Amino acid sequence: MLLDAASSLMIRTQSVDISLSELASHSGLNSALVKYYFGSKNGMLVALMKRAASTALAQLDYLKSMPISPTAKMKLHIAGIINTYHRFPYWNRLVHYLLQDPTSAQSAEIVEFFVKPLIEFQRDILAEGVRAGEFRQIDPMNFYFSVVGACDAPFFARFVFDLMGVEDFDDQRRRSYIAHVTELVLSQLLVEPERARGADGGSES
Amino acid sequence: MLLDAASSLMIRTQSVDISLSELASHSGLNSALVKYYFGSKNGMLVALMKRAASTALAQLDYLKSMPISPTAKMKLHIAGIINTYHRFPYWNRLVHYLLQDPTSAQSAEIVEFFVKPLIEFQRDILAEGVRAGEFRQIDPMNFYFSVVGACDAPFFARFVFDLMGVEDFDDQRRRSYIAHVTELVLSQLLVEPERARGADGGSES
Repeated sequence: MLLDAASSLMIRTQSVDISLSELASHSGLNSALVKYYFGSKNGMLVALMKRAASTALAQLDYLKSMPISPTAKMKLHIAGIINTYHRFPYWNRLVHYLLQDPTSAQSAEIVEFFVKPLIEFQRDILAEGVRAGEFRQIDPMNFYFSVVGACDAPFFARFVFDLMGVEDFDDQRRRSYIAHVTELVLSQLLVEPERARGADGGSES
Repeated sequence: MLLDAASSLMIRTQSVDISLSELASHSGLNSALVKYYFGSKNGMLVALMKRAASTALAQLDYLKSMPISPTAKMKLHIAGIINTYHRFPYWNRLVHYLLQDPTSAQSAEIVEFFVKPLIEFQRDILAEGVRAGEFRQIDPMNFYFSVVGACDAPFFARFVFDLMGVEDFDDQRRRSYIAHVTELVLSQLLVEPERARGADGGSES
């Protein structure tokens, strides 16, 4: 219940910097429970990340082993990142919030559990695509930043919607953005760029 | 001096959430000066953004009027965004920090002065490129999010450098990233995608 309350409070306030007293009044729970169950507020935030990440990381493992082409894996991967940010719009902000002190035990844990698997997955799939003759050689670090940055941006800059005359980042918008980023990434990555055009994003969910 | 101190403190702490007492001890200045000159801490942060933005916005105006092709303008635009984030790595975080209360006068000011000109510039150049037969039709909102997100990410996620075995986002890295994002964006945007490959980023600075 504490994790659900923290999650919905972050979405409502569009901030990860929630206080225990806000959490208490939002949830109707005694904030001492945070210390009891998680040791500290940051301990609770790490638990929240782990819960949010478990599905996403399981998908990454499953995707790696699927008997499909590197191009098809990349499409599913991009849809997977955007769908994860859509479900947990505070995800990236929370990572950065918890990494503010890079020497803390939490920082080491977060890097080990959330960031490293993603980077390693992308390295592997990029190499696999090059070996299969589907992908051009792209620097993995440049690739990581551009893909993750592009996938994250709409969930981070909601004030732009007003300026664009858009009500909300609804399902249609989400699907349109998945198709856009998929086409963007594959246009650069594929040996035959024209095959990227009109890429459908590879996911219905 | 207060603005310089706030800027260097944000870069050092990798956080925009600086306190007036930190600012006082970092700068050796009395924090009451913040209230005297800027009315409040947020007033000072808006002044800091305005100073940082003035060069970038002047470049945008100049770029719009240059007698060069839409493709050449787009290359300079992408290099311009990345170079601005490189100089002011706290930029995007500061925008979001100041927009946390979307009903405040500061929020209206920030949207009006920093976000709107960028969105309008991109809309214009996208339309210009389509008219010139150089660009395909791309949704301006999808375009905005993917480009700004990609340009911003390395300055936001420095903890990734360690994992990638990279010391720092130095000049060589910055140039490599400009070339990468330029190629990425043009690969999708250009009617003739093969012309994007090996795009040099269009800027020496």
